[in-house]
Amino acid sequence: MNYKTAEREITEAAVASFDGSESDRYRTVMQALVKHLHSFAQEVQLTQAEWMAGIDFLTRAGQISGPRSQELILLSDILGLSMLTVAINEPKDQRVTASTVFGPFFVENSPWIERDGDLAQGAIGEPCYVSGSVSSVDGSPIAGARVEVWGADEDGLYDVQYNTTRIANRGHQHTEDDGTFRFWTVMPVPYPIPTDGPAGELLQTARRTPMRPAHLHFMITAPGYQDLITHIFADGDPHLGSDAVFGVRPSLIGDYASNPAGTAPDGSVREKGWVELKFDFVLGERVEVDG
Amino acid sequence: MNYKTAEREITEAAVASFDGSESDRYRTVMQALVKHLHSFAQEVQLTQAEWMAGIDFLTRAGQISGPRSQELILLSDILGLSMLTVAINEPKDQRVTASTVFGPFFVENSPWIERDGDLAQGAIGEPCYVSGSVSSVDGSPIAGARVEVWGADEDGLYDVQYNTTRIANRGHQHTEDDGTFRFWTVMPVPYPIPTDGPAGELLQTARRTPMRPAHLHFMITAPGYQDLITHIFADGDPHLGSDAVFGVRPSLIGDYASNPAGTAPDGSVREKGWVELKFDFVLGERVEVDG
Repeated sequence: MNYKTAEREITEAAVASFDGSESDRYRTVMQALVKHLHSFAQEVQLTQAEWMAGIDFLTRAGQISGPRSQELILLSDILGLSMLTVAINEPKDQRVTASTVFGPFFVENSPWIERDGDLAQGAIGEPCYVSGSVSSVDGSPIAGARVEVWGADEDGLYDVQYNTTRIANRGHQHTEDDGTFRFWTVMPVPYPIPTDGPAGELLQTARRTPMRPAHLHFMITAPGYQDLITHIFADGDPHLGSDAVFGVRPSLIGDYASNPAGTAPDGSVREKGWVELKFDFVLGERVEVDG
Repeated sequence: MNYKTAEREITEAAVASFDGSESDRYRTVMQALVKHLHSFAQEVQLTQAEWMAGIDFLTRAGQISGPRSQELILLSDILGLSMLTVAINEPKDQRVTASTVFGPFFVENSPWIERDGDLAQGAIGEPCYVSGSVSSVDGSPIAGARVEVWGADEDGLYDVQYNTTRIANRGHQHTEDDGTFRFWTVMPVPYPIPTDGPAGELLQTARRTPMRPAHLHFMITAPGYQDLITHIFADGDPHLGSDAVFGVRPSLIGDYASNPAGTAPDGSVREKGWVELKFDFVLGERVEVDG
């Protein structure tokens, strides 16, 4: 051995330390992680101060995360890792609706919303009627699919970003026998991702915009089909080309059409203008994975 | 654009998003980080469940970290990143004492220990007399160098790992005009790194040992010289070849020599056996870095 262990030997020892891992997959993932992490440090000749800044950054990100906000997901989002992982794992069949990032604002156990019901539940914004269908790639309707929806209000905030326990503008519905769903929500608006934590510091240092183009979140699940987690973005939004989390995909841009006061498709009479979005979703069949 | 954005385009967009960074260095570091992080995800075809496990792992690591323990440093340590960063940044002059990991147990404002004083301050263990010198590469003694020392007790625990605010077995001394220092501490023993957090889970899943070979921590600083952060390991320790944090370097193995009861070098009479370590440190000159 040399007087000072060579850098290469350190990397080799760290990789080899995972040789006896419980599973082949764990060994594969961790050895690749070590290799790429070390390559990164070597490539930039990482300084001690930069290393410490990274430790501090991740520590603070963990510490400000809680049941109502998740800074590590935000970090993964703004580094493009979330979206890349989505793309790696989505069905390759081009007929299946494209996926996008999950985001940090999903909450379990959202309320059930009746057909033509309003999931806004007090969230402010222009009323938006959403209808569409869920089908398989051969066009057959999927009955009983769970359509989970969540969105920000006209101030660009989700219910969990308010200092209350109020649940608003999130809910779920099951498709009818013909595969359709329909409900009211509020028109989404562009909004900045939270910038009060380390992710915000990163965006500022990189001189990047925190803005996301307006979108509604959908999670659609049905037995036998691969879960679909996606957004429907609003056509014409000025931030479509600069989404802070790289989530925009051309096929996910929908037409949120403005309508004057009058009778809506569900027969309700609207005294002010409202918006209508129609979107049909296609699910891929679930692929059984060994192990 | 394609129906579904290609994975390559996501990586390109994430890299390009740092083009306008505040500084060239920030752009360089972050673009390399994004590139290597994405290469990792691609290489292993990271699943959503694995991604989520990573988010959860880092979140918990941040949340259990505090002023008295730092899980992200432990994580960096057991992935070999800390040691690699140390090796990248240490002076390349082979005459300079080798560096090793900082570890998570350093505490600011340690007590000053007089010459031949005892930094154990109640820490249990076999008495260990440490003496040596600090010099520059040309052999000239460095007077007034701050020699900061910390170590575990015979149970393998640092003071900060006890549920008290007691400060024990850590302290600092300044070298005399002839560059020497000398003090009492307790003989270090091998110990496991903390395994009650995510780092411990990682070691268990990788079937790795959490053990570190016995060592004393040193941080030696002097105006005009590059800070030296290192350990002196104990020759013969069974864990020298399998240090959980890859910190062992051959030149840092010292002879902790056992002595029977009797008179110690400082003239004190020891009623039981004691250990003596002699070690001379060499500092590299500080290199001025632009910017």
